[in-house]
Amino acid sequence: MKLTTEQIAQFDREGYLFFPSLFSAAEMKPLLDEVPQLYAQHRPENVREKGSDAVRTNFAAHLYSYPFAKLARHPRMVEPVVALFGEPVYMHQFKINGKMAFDGDVWQWHQDYGTWKNDDLMPEPRAMNVAIFLDEVNEFNGPLMFIPGSHKLGVISAEHDLTTTSYPLWTINHDTIARLVERGGIVAPKGPAGSLIMFHSCLVHASASNLSPWNRINVYLSLCAVSNHIRRFKRPEYIAHRDFAPIECLPDDCLLKHYDVPLPWKDGTPEEALKPLVAA
Amino acid sequence: MKLTTEQIAQFDREGYLFFPSLFSAAEMKPLLDEVPQLYAQHRPENVREKGSDAVRTNFAAHLYSYPFAKLARHPRMVEPVVALFGEPVYMHQFKINGKMAFDGDVWQWHQDYGTWKNDDLMPEPRAMNVAIFLDEVNEFNGPLMFIPGSHKLGVISAEHDLTTTSYPLWTINHDTIARLVERGGIVAPKGPAGSLIMFHSCLVHASASNLSPWNRINVYLSLCAVSNHIRRFKRPEYIAHRDFAPIECLPDDCLLKHYDVPLPWKDGTPEEALKPLVAA
Repeated sequence: MKLTTEQIAQFDREGYLFFPSLFSAAEMKPLLDEVPQLYAQHRPENVREKGSDAVRTNFAAHLYSYPFAKLARHPRMVEPVVALFGEPVYMHQFKINGKMAFDGDVWQWHQDYGTWKNDDLMPEPRAMNVAIFLDEVNEFNGPLMFIPGSHKLGVISAEHDLTTTSYPLWTINHDTIARLVERGGIVAPKGPAGSLIMFHSCLVHASASNLSPWNRINVYLSLCAVSNHIRRFKRPEYIAHRDFAPIECLPDDCLLKHYDVPLPWKDGTPEEALKPLVAA
Repeated sequence: MKLTTEQIAQFDREGYLFFPSLFSAAEMKPLLDEVPQLYAQHRPENVREKGSDAVRTNFAAHLYSYPFAKLARHPRMVEPVVALFGEPVYMHQFKINGKMAFDGDVWQWHQDYGTWKNDDLMPEPRAMNVAIFLDEVNEFNGPLMFIPGSHKLGVISAEHDLTTTSYPLWTINHDTIARLVERGGIVAPKGPAGSLIMFHSCLVHASASNLSPWNRINVYLSLCAVSNHIRRFKRPEYIAHRDFAPIECLPDDCLLKHYDVPLPWKDGTPEEALKPLVAA
């Protein structure tokens, strides 16, 4: 997959690109089928919703789950990002966000790069967010909402919200959001399983609760330019990875055929990956 | 306004009718302008959101606010309901639901008639819900969601949810909702301020949180057939009214011109309207 000149201009202008059905239903099925047993595990990588057993997010499955390890190396996802950054990328973060039927809670308005800069000392916003739909996303199951153009403002000041949901987040205040929306509006790309959104790490985004009977499971990952790797290991490694080796892509049919991939955390997460390790 | 044969058939089949822009922007403006001072009052009729000062719902404004007293007697709203029930109606409940920007919380899946039957001993589901949009309703500010056809099941068993939000509600379990949605889908009518939805008191509905910077203030009222009046006064009168006098409509231009209307609670809610009064 190569981005066109118009797509590159659109990404620069709006901060995101949407590719409906970039993957087929057959490619998504083994991933979706794997989720229940991942979510059933009681390991630190599963963060559950406040007041419910539903998983809000699962971290680092690409290190212990075979189908997700292949997805993490998919050329249709990785190559356009490498082309945009003009250098190889590594996996900074890998999540499977649940937003489960009935229980999926909100994510307040935020930018991802704010956290990476403040907590991880990532030098520049040269890490790309990618959302891959394992389920159909519709208006009722809590689609990602973006404020187009908001990435142009760089890092916006934010407050650490430790109470609204089960996952701490640097969230942006209401007056700022109102001003940004007045200028850029809100968009919420919707589409079948296999659709993909690429979005700038400074793009302001949120998602509503899911009251519908339809799960909205997204793989949500961040590909960071290798030269832009994080400088501080304040967060556990399963949240902010410390292996900066460039991703080596598998062939385009990797979700449908067998390929050998390493699964280093298959037998459990190493003790040192569960702890902060603040650099000297 | 007279309903057509097709509209009556559609109401019977789907349980709701949507009238985009039934009222003009000019007709809605005095109502919307009145809301801030109503919400600012600290009186029992204002129920606030959990953990916020935003008003979730205001009760009985038609008894102490001039523009809302006129709306409560509007022929464009009242006459089709009288025609459908074949008898006069009285105001069973009158609310201004906030669903305010950023703070508006969810309403879980429920039927209204369940509460009226259980708490108020209303004999039959012969009370019509009406939602009137004071703000534009879009996909981002928590539109009402309906499961078409779900009214055909009558009263569905429900559990009293006292914890999720600040307002207690008889909510329907997830398995039942999933089955109903599989059959009927979900719809969420959207449109400009002045739009109106009529829906059956057994129609299952819900609404998501409002993370957008746009308020979604709805007038939400229930017109009950006079012969079907409630039999028990277990809830305070400002929530479930005890005056069964038929609504006498004002002329069609009543929102734009002056008409005299009674405002019996203008100087405060009478003590006896704040208390339950269980009939012998």
